[in-house]
Amino acid sequence: MPDPQIPVQTLWSAFDARRFRDALEALAPDFEALWPQTRELIRGAEGFVALNEAYPGQWRCRLQRLEPISDTRVAALVEISNAFEDGSGERLFAVGFYDVEDGKIVRAEEYFADCAEPPFDRSEWAERY
Amino acid sequence: MPDPQIPVQTLWSAFDARRFRDALEALAPDFEALWPQTRELIRGAEGFVALNEAYPGQWRCRLQRLEPISDTRVAALVEISNAFEDGSGERLFAVGFYDVEDGKIVRAEEYFADCAEPPFDRSEWAERY
Repeated sequence: MPDPQIPVQTLWSAFDARRFRDALEALAPDFEALWPQTRELIRGAEGFVALNEAYPGQWRCRLQRLEPISDTRVAALVEISNAFEDGSGERLFAVGFYDVEDGKIVRAEEYFADCAEPPFDRSEWAERY
Repeated sequence: MPDPQIPVQTLWSAFDARRFRDALEALAPDFEALWPQTRELIRGAEGFVALNEAYPGQWRCRLQRLEPISDTRVAALVEISNAFEDGSGERLFAVGFYDVEDGKIVRAEEYFADCAEPPFDRSEWAERY
């Protein structure tokens, strides 16, 4: 059985390089993505690639960790960042769960977690790093 | 070997019921939590419980899914929501990775993903549900 981590690596590597259509080799044609935060469902590999290509900004996507859950399921942690010319930037994490069949991702469920300052003073218990 | 999913269930069940100190039975005394979005590290079970108890708002925490990664590692998806008297509310998802030893969580790494409207018009590819 092919390693289910490989298509997830291919997907994020393609997005990081902004070679969006290279991601198609990692996705089954009837791939579906679920984005629960916005209650969005994207049907089809072509549409998913097109949407990501249309996303405003020049985002780097660094795969930080893969967690093999089973022979057909992988979790991934990705650091996504966008640097602006003025030196500022945006940074977030994506946590995705990917179902893989025959070496292709058939389903993704992705969560996007923005970086920010702590929302209240909790320095009594938490140290910054 | 005890099921590593059990202390994760206990943790979120205690937070959901706002019986914060009940979470202590699920946490090793030298438990550590990492919140990469705010670059915060919380050392110690007592501090983690105190911080969560101090968090403003009356949050429900519904464990939606547990993903056993290994005998000592679990991923959890939790829907967190806060309803206000005026009928409005906030909703987010927590995705956490938990390391468990001898039935106690020794380390958590948690990501918090806010719900929102889509940030640009991508209805050509995504349908709302």
